[in-house]
Amino acid sequence: MTLIAQPQSMHFTQALGLRCGRELGPYQLVYETYGQLNAQRSNAVLICHALNASHHVAGTYPGQDKSEGWWDNMVGPGKPLDTDRFFVVGVNNLGSCFGSTGPMHTHPQTGQVYGADFPVVTVEDWVNSQARLLDQLGIEQLAAVMGGSLGGMQALSWTLQHPDRVRHALVIASSPNLNAENIAFNEVARRAIATDPDFHGGHFYRHGVVPKRGLRIARMLGHITYLSDDVMNAKFGRRLRHALAGASFQYTTQDIEFEIESYLRHQGDKFSDYFDANTYLLITRALDYFDPAREFGGDLSAALARAKADFLLISFSTDWRFSPARSREMVRALLQNRSTVSYAEIDAPHGHDAFLLDDARYLSLVRSYFDQIAQQGGFA
Amino acid sequence: MTLIAQPQSMHFTQALGLRCGRELGPYQLVYETYGQLNAQRSNAVLICHALNASHHVAGTYPGQDKSEGWWDNMVGPGKPLDTDRFFVVGVNNLGSCFGSTGPMHTHPQTGQVYGADFPVVTVEDWVNSQARLLDQLGIEQLAAVMGGSLGGMQALSWTLQHPDRVRHALVIASSPNLNAENIAFNEVARRAIATDPDFHGGHFYRHGVVPKRGLRIARMLGHITYLSDDVMNAKFGRRLRHALAGASFQYTTQDIEFEIESYLRHQGDKFSDYFDANTYLLITRALDYFDPAREFGGDLSAALARAKADFLLISFSTDWRFSPARSREMVRALLQNRSTVSYAEIDAPHGHDAFLLDDARYLSLVRSYFDQIAQQGGFA
Repeated sequence: MTLIAQPQSMHFTQALGLRCGRELGPYQLVYETYGQLNAQRSNAVLICHALNASHHVAGTYPGQDKSEGWWDNMVGPGKPLDTDRFFVVGVNNLGSCFGSTGPMHTHPQTGQVYGADFPVVTVEDWVNSQARLLDQLGIEQLAAVMGGSLGGMQALSWTLQHPDRVRHALVIASSPNLNAENIAFNEVARRAIATDPDFHGGHFYRHGVVPKRGLRIARMLGHITYLSDDVMNAKFGRRLRHALAGASFQYTTQDIEFEIESYLRHQGDKFSDYFDANTYLLITRALDYFDPAREFGGDLSAALARAKADFLLISFSTDWRFSPARSREMVRALLQNRSTVSYAEIDAPHGHDAFLLDDARYLSLVRSYFDQIAQQGGFA
Repeated sequence: MTLIAQPQSMHFTQALGLRCGRELGPYQLVYETYGQLNAQRSNAVLICHALNASHHVAGTYPGQDKSEGWWDNMVGPGKPLDTDRFFVVGVNNLGSCFGSTGPMHTHPQTGQVYGADFPVVTVEDWVNSQARLLDQLGIEQLAAVMGGSLGGMQALSWTLQHPDRVRHALVIASSPNLNAENIAFNEVARRAIATDPDFHGGHFYRHGVVPKRGLRIARMLGHITYLSDDVMNAKFGRRLRHALAGASFQYTTQDIEFEIESYLRHQGDKFSDYFDANTYLLITRALDYFDPAREFGGDLSAALARAKADFLLISFSTDWRFSPARSREMVRALLQNRSTVSYAEIDAPHGHDAFLLDDARYLSLVRSYFDQIAQQGGFA
């Protein structure tokens, strides 16, 4: 059965107080829902998205080829997160470029496009904005909140900021904070964007240009870190782009020689056609800033003590951006608090991207976990 | 005792045939020598440099503070490579920006600065140019050739192109070729440079500008890959730049927040002040292209069968750019050929940079190896 997706929009007139001390508002959130909220309003699952994704989690848009949601293999009728039993909400985060209020929109007070004046939003701010959306949808408590990577940070943050509103949290390929290397990669990407002459300090909209050069570099670099060394060697290795039998090097410094170069340039070009530069800065900063243990002197166990949810954490063996070691830190901290935690380390070759891909063990693990939630909730 | 370094220059009128099919010439090589060539001319050691280095391997320039050579901890009187016993030659490679003929120089035929028209040079070309320099210096056979990283590739290549001219090869923190991930990082750096509007297709000299934005990005990215995750966490972690007690985030996307950002920006700025953009493209391409097994259908053992030298290979446990696994590939191939090989995997926290740093086990290992060479050669 094909799931038809239908984006919706909710307007919020009351400003949202942000961690940075500023307020954002009025604002809108774009979201999609799949399945039916049951009479007890107990079967809702919130999906939080990562850097490059949106509210469009599952299903397709009528008449649009290749319009599957970014987690369509995970969410839908009969899928691991089964929309025949669960009411699933996907929401686009503030600051994004896919519909919710972001830097491309007009500041209601000034009448100017936000651009670089859009406030710095954090994981905590996103969670609070999502909570308001759930209020409007009449959802007091989530059966589960779920996300991978930056989405997993939001899922974790939900359990800390709204502990009574989350029964289960699925934190996948995530981390309790970014380490120095991850911040460093983000910073290189941000500098590539911010030093692109077409960036104009973040106010490029006024100039009718887009800092595509910077966006391309950011995306190329991102792609390297999403893939494992092994999968890059398997997919591309040292193969030449024009790999005819006996083909030799072209000896060029500016043209494409190896297939991996062609792949990265293509990914960079695609990305620069649709992604917003200010959004890229904001989202990477939200990643950098997330660090619930910070207020607790680095004691993650103390930071997570507020959580009342049960947890499923999943990591992937070849993920060097959000490594299994980082998931294990969270597992240890939760166990110290006597939280209920399940943890799986999936032996997968695909690196960080694995959380989006079809891996039978991974998908069946998530399926089992949701089966259990449904049984507990009486809507199996 | 302080070693005083003195750069010298050698002019070559005969053009050098290159792998790319083009010829380069006339050209000059800048080099330095330390110690004395013995009467038998048997105590010469050639040092090959990596991406960012030069002929200035050891010693200082009179009256110049902090002018120590890049491997001054390794080479000098009483050092592991002891210039009281060995005659050491450091040579700047063609295409570099430190004195030997490169893209910043004028093409003798056209009277124009080479810029992007400088021919693509390879590791093999460098080795051939170094061999010509040794001819002029009256050195028929090297006691040893030694290099780290890209320098190690040159050392390996020496044993294949001029097997009778090398008694020992020290191949440190190196690889028999780059894998897809390494090529990918190089390509991101090259694109950052080549898409900088100030690059002008490589002819920026004519425009009186320098593509500093691209060079900064390239260098920032490089630095991430030279360091290990562990050492970055130890040196920088998540520390804020303004880390006063209780200091909070500034919530900024374009300004520096974390110390690691400050470090990377500083490194990028420094680099963009002195390094040449075309040289960066050329040297990263030389890295990409090096692959002696390619002509042998990928059979590294067959490729290395020509070598007659004895080998010392060294790798560092946390080097993820030129990992120990890549050194082990070379060791296995050499052992299959019954070459004489010593191999050490040094447990060091510093990542790829370790080959330049003071590690007692590493330095004493190299010292012992050169002691042995000196004893064999009768100049101990």
